[in-house]
Amino acid sequence: MSLGRKLRMGMVGGGKGAFIGPVHRIAAELDGKIELVAGAFSQSPERSREAGIAFHIDPARAYPSYQAMIDAERNRADGIDFVVITTPNHLHLPIARAAITADIPVMSDKPATATYEEALELETLVKKSGLPYGLTHTYAGYQLVREARAILAAGALGSIRKVAVEYLQGWLSTPLEGTGHKQAEWRADPARSGKGGSIGDIGTHAFHLVEYVSGLKVTAINATLRRVVPGRVLDDDCNAFLRMSNGSAGSLACSQIAAGEINEVRIRIYGEKGSIDWRQQDPNRLVVKWLDKPEEIHHASSGYLTAGVRALSRTPAGHPEGYLEAFAVLYSEFADALIAWKQGEKNPVPATLPGIEAGVRGMRFIERVIESDQKQAWVEF
Amino acid sequence: MSLGRKLRMGMVGGGKGAFIGPVHRIAAELDGKIELVAGAFSQSPERSREAGIAFHIDPARAYPSYQAMIDAERNRADGIDFVVITTPNHLHLPIARAAITADIPVMSDKPATATYEEALELETLVKKSGLPYGLTHTYAGYQLVREARAILAAGALGSIRKVAVEYLQGWLSTPLEGTGHKQAEWRADPARSGKGGSIGDIGTHAFHLVEYVSGLKVTAINATLRRVVPGRVLDDDCNAFLRMSNGSAGSLACSQIAAGEINEVRIRIYGEKGSIDWRQQDPNRLVVKWLDKPEEIHHASSGYLTAGVRALSRTPAGHPEGYLEAFAVLYSEFADALIAWKQGEKNPVPATLPGIEAGVRGMRFIERVIESDQKQAWVEF
Amino acid sequence: MSLGRKLRMGMVGGGKGAFIGPVHRIAAELDGKIELVAGAFSQSPERSREAGIAFHIDPARAYPSYQAMIDAERNRADGIDFVVITTPNHLHLPIARAAITADIPVMSDKPATATYEEALELETLVKKSGLPYGLTHTYAGYQLVREARAILAAGALGSIRKVAVEYLQGWLSTPLEGTGHKQAEWRADPARSGKGGSIGDIGTHAFHLVEYVSGLKVTAINATLRRVVPGRVLDDDCNAFLRMSNGSAGSLACSQIAAGEINEVRIRIYGEKGSIDWRQQDPNRLVVKWLDKPEEIHHASSGYLTAGVRALSRTPAGHPEGYLEAFAVLYSEFADALIAWKQGEKNPVPATLPGIEAGVRGMRFIERVIESDQKQAWVEF
Amino acid sequence: MSLGRKLRMGMVGGGKGAFIGPVHRIAAELDGKIELVAGAFSQSPERSREAGIAFHIDPARAYPSYQAMIDAERNRADGIDFVVITTPNHLHLPIARAAITADIPVMSDKPATATYEEALELETLVKKSGLPYGLTHTYAGYQLVREARAILAAGALGSIRKVAVEYLQGWLSTPLEGTGHKQAEWRADPARSGKGGSIGDIGTHAFHLVEYVSGLKVTAINATLRRVVPGRVLDDDCNAFLRMSNGSAGSLACSQIAAGEINEVRIRIYGEKGSIDWRQQDPNRLVVKWLDKPEEIHHASSGYLTAGVRALSRTPAGHPEGYLEAFAVLYSEFADALIAWKQGEKNPVPATLPGIEAGVRGMRFIERVIESDQKQAWVEF
Repeated sequence: MSLGRKLRMGMVGGGKGAFIGPVHRIAAELDGKIELVAGAFSQSPERSREAGIAFHIDPARAYPSYQAMIDAERNRADGIDFVVITTPNHLHLPIARAAITADIPVMSDKPATATYEEALELETLVKKSGLPYGLTHTYAGYQLVREARAILAAGALGSIRKVAVEYLQGWLSTPLEGTGHKQAEWRADPARSGKGGSIGDIGTHAFHLVEYVSGLKVTAINATLRRVVPGRVLDDDCNAFLRMSNGSAGSLACSQIAAGEINEVRIRIYGEKGSIDWRQQDPNRLVVKWLDKPEEIHHASSGYLTAGVRALSRTPAGHPEGYLEAFAVLYSEFADALIAWKQGEKNPVPATLPGIEAGVRGMRFIERVIESDQKQAWVEF
Repeated sequence: MSLGRKLRMGMVGGGKGAFIGPVHRIAAELDGKIELVAGAFSQSPERSREAGIAFHIDPARAYPSYQAMIDAERNRADGIDFVVITTPNHLHLPIARAAITADIPVMSDKPATATYEEALELETLVKKSGLPYGLTHTYAGYQLVREARAILAAGALGSIRKVAVEYLQGWLSTPLEGTGHKQAEWRADPARSGKGGSIGDIGTHAFHLVEYVSGLKVTAINATLRRVVPGRVLDDDCNAFLRMSNGSAGSLACSQIAAGEINEVRIRIYGEKGSIDWRQQDPNRLVVKWLDKPEEIHHASSGYLTAGVRALSRTPAGHPEGYLEAFAVLYSEFADALIAWKQGEKNPVPATLPGIEAGVRGMRFIERVIESDQKQAWVEF
Repeated sequence: MSLGRKLRMGMVGGGKGAFIGPVHRIAAELDGKIELVAGAFSQSPERSREAGIAFHIDPARAYPSYQAMIDAERNRADGIDFVVITTPNHLHLPIARAAITADIPVMSDKPATATYEEALELETLVKKSGLPYGLTHTYAGYQLVREARAILAAGALGSIRKVAVEYLQGWLSTPLEGTGHKQAEWRADPARSGKGGSIGDIGTHAFHLVEYVSGLKVTAINATLRRVVPGRVLDDDCNAFLRMSNGSAGSLACSQIAAGEINEVRIRIYGEKGSIDWRQQDPNRLVVKWLDKPEEIHHASSGYLTAGVRALSRTPAGHPEGYLEAFAVLYSEFADALIAWKQGEKNPVPATLPGIEAGVRGMRFIERVIESDQKQAWVEF
Repeated sequence: MSLGRKLRMGMVGGGKGAFIGPVHRIAAELDGKIELVAGAFSQSPERSREAGIAFHIDPARAYPSYQAMIDAERNRADGIDFVVITTPNHLHLPIARAAITADIPVMSDKPATATYEEALELETLVKKSGLPYGLTHTYAGYQLVREARAILAAGALGSIRKVAVEYLQGWLSTPLEGTGHKQAEWRADPARSGKGGSIGDIGTHAFHLVEYVSGLKVTAINATLRRVVPGRVLDDDCNAFLRMSNGSAGSLACSQIAAGEINEVRIRIYGEKGSIDWRQQDPNRLVVKWLDKPEEIHHASSGYLTAGVRALSRTPAGHPEGYLEAFAVLYSEFADALIAWKQGEKNPVPATLPGIEAGVRGMRFIERVIESDQKQAWVEF
């Protein structure tokens, strides 16, 4: 299934100093299915132009604004096939809305929007449009996260009884947002980030991961938030209890003041017969522990992985893949879905690729955590 | 400081099939300061006699009951110097009371008693008597737990901001207590174990560890308990939020249905500048992580360990010590305290050795957890 | 320093079923400096055409042979800027010779050639031509390999005393070459692979790594080779002693019958004051051990890494990079050198990028190992 | 099978400042089968007396010399049942000879003697006497070393193809022997240590381990020795190739100048279908890797361990054992053999307990390594 050409991507965000824009560019192009051809890389036309040069795209296609990009590209014969959104959160909805209105599919960084209400609006837009929409919950792209999901779905560990997910960082242990640090600045500012601090930035990843791997939904949450660094407006630490749709339970923790942790994403899920344990910083090993058998290490790219999952890696076993490759898995799935959609398929986005439903749940997670923290009680999800 | 002889220990519990009795015997004798000379090893006189033979003690000193042991030994010139209690929980207080009444110091397995009220009674008894009393919260005996405590006490990581302690096992993932398994049976029976299931058996260890290492007290707790295995009377899984005496916060988790975990005791404490991370199953390495410097692994027995802590190991660096050696550290400190006490010192038990205060706090922990779970709310500690 | 466009790459090899060709494509394009525009992907014109379609290049630029590609591309205004060679070893020299003769720079998979004599010829060609030439000893592209090299070069560990490098695989534990397995087949065939089996395929990587990281040269070698799997023509296991240029010594091991190992590349180098230890399967952590201080873990992308090395990663600390990213570092350096060369710089290839000298040493390594094994004695390098 | 009492041990060596004597005391007594009752702890009568007091033995049984101890104890009704030798190497034979001449069984620290000729003499003495003799190659006492041995013996991995054993330390990276450091001093002195430096002190352990675990014998060796630290008389670093009795091959490395290593004992053995990998510093985990299946971690004390091996631990899974417990396994087996021998059994020492044959092979190893190094060639073993 091919168009005989690469898909054309137009990026919003990703100008100089951006972290996630270049990551999207690499990930999108990695599997040879997509090429970056246009962009509105900055709200400054000059910086957008400079980024276009750095990305080696046609200077005419480095636009001063996302609206300009959408307007111009929809009228080109070789116009973009989709928009990728890599801006701060408050711009996610307006950009997505503009793209969808112009009939252009969207791949978006998470969270889907800045507020829950926006997410609901976006969901309506996406569903009405029938356009493919993808959300880059990167951790869902790791091969061994997929393997863990497959093992649980197959029931190999019996019913799930307990979950534990954590996402710990230490980089906001000091008031970095007051020092001119661009990444820290917008994340700490409710106007650009939304109501959630750590829970929006990384808690949503943890929340998505636990639902994604377990195949269960969170049905209730009891959370406690903190603003540990003096002067900080948004939360920088969260502990939460979870109740899951099958009656099991567990915990979610996220923090950006866990000094010494760099990016500790870990998920453990316990069934009746055993458990899985995966750490993002050691991503090519999945630990499977059993009640009565030796612990197992499942290595990425191995022949014994679940069919389908095995195909996700590009290198033989023992040649580590990482964050960019996980990201690229999501883009590869999005590209395949886009081609299928262009060829007339109705709902081509596979269940493995996080979409707008995941986006809505993520935004609801932020709402519910804040509500629970305010009430200091369980809230239904 | 020496008596010119080993201290004489009389054991209650530890008969055939017991797990922890033999562990106490090994640990007590390991450093050459103590010898087992008497015991009431079982409630069956015959089994007590058999255990005495197996332990190679004088047959006349294998007693049919703890009271018989205490009565006989207090009248011997070479009578026992202290009693060690290794029975199920409900017997801890009666035995301790009998010993203290007979002016015999006590070393006790944890928890201190079966109920909080009993713990308060025991505390009064101990304090009034002035007798040395030790509680074997084993994990407090590991050299690198001591090192973590020393690092935090010295302020090397700045103020503590976040704690996370967990103790996870999977061995009660099935209704083992209904199969005649002796260890599972009494733990699952409120009449012998008390109100706490996993929280009493292992949660108290986690609770003690977090206070012990951090040097802080838990001031409030919000816990959620579960009885996951059908038919189980006591809790087998717990997640809790903690508030600490310096205003920091964190989490405590314990479980006996975490299938695949064998004995996962882990503590992480985060300060302003870095954090410590210790796992009991890899006990000879203490991870110290920093905001801005390479992560460090502090190896047991190394020359760079804190003075005092360095002396706790018996082998050079690279020769691993484990659970028995940690246990023996507690006995060694108890022995030294006992000798000092015999030589007239007033409060010879060092702060490093858990005592009756730790015992009372552990029992209060069980109470508060249950209360919090019932209210589904925070409770003051 | 930029051409205002991406560099254009023409690939030889990399058709269907190839492992390393697609890896080169991803790595070359990853940092946005290079694009694949032409190829002679297979000796079958049909398969080359098919590969061209799969790579989404202009069909006219999928050539039936490397010579056809070179002839056509040198006459295009938008012709390729360099050739990448990803074929079996026996074709490395002919292709490189053809490219260089046509004044086209070369990036080559390792080993440089099939024989030592060929390597010397190629060295002469490269040097006379003045063309940039790069050799993809991938492991030299890992950020923390660079950091280890920098630490040693700075003398932080004192003089080097001992080295130990190993590269262990198990995938040739069975006579896979007799089963139609394409990758195993050519590697096991001296006509395509050269004289070296495991020593050529992976031993050359280990050899390069030890010289690259230590900054020393191997001056003598004592090796013992085996053909463990019955019927195998070339070696599949090697142990060697090394003497180094500063008088230190060490060991090199490679094997493709180490059943259970997937791709265990590890290097340890011991100085007077400490040592470094790096494993390719855990590539984002560099262990630095000291005589008298805690062991350190240096994490990829961290702020405390050596200046210059820090810049090699594309993601923040804690977001793992792997094999493709290491590969891409080499391509990125090659691209920068190529642009500088096009702009008139004389010897633009940096010392960090393996070149023809490394290629010659690698081929000499194969020769010397075989000679030493035959003599069962030390041979000067 | 019991004597109704503990076995009585008389120690030679182990006075103040000794490392290994106290370790023997702890290990011997750990399982409750043996008690230290007598000793000739130092060549200084005064220091021997002081050690006796510290060990709480009858002052009359702290002797000024080993001969005095043997003479006195053989005439006591409650005399020692065996002698343990914990002195520097050059005294091993004289003490063992004196004990055996007096019909007293011997447990000895390794190596068995100071020279190969002495080892042959001791072998003759032991065999003629029929007395139990044990050699504390500690690593043979680790539960998971036993498990690795059992797995290989059962053929689960197929025929052995490759072995790799290493024992690396860094503590002699400086000329410690010239600073008054007692442990370093005698080890560096050929008059007390014998011809071997690192190869005698730790290489013999590695050599024993590879034969012990593999069940194979070394048939030829090609070794290269170094004296890295200026002024050092004996070797401090060794790399060796091994040929094994089944035609397989491998490597042995030992070093005491591997700065940063504390006590890195590791053994890997590769069969046709998989491999085992065990590290002494992580002793409660045995890694078993397979060609086509997930890697396995076998945890100490687990129910799935080989029958017989399971019984060696004293604690449940997850409660780590270490060096002292491994040591104690050897003492426990020696004690059982001694009791059986006292009750008339002829050759009661089990194959699992290293004895005089292992002692002779260890001394031959030292000889052969030195011979090979001098010839720079393979020598038959």
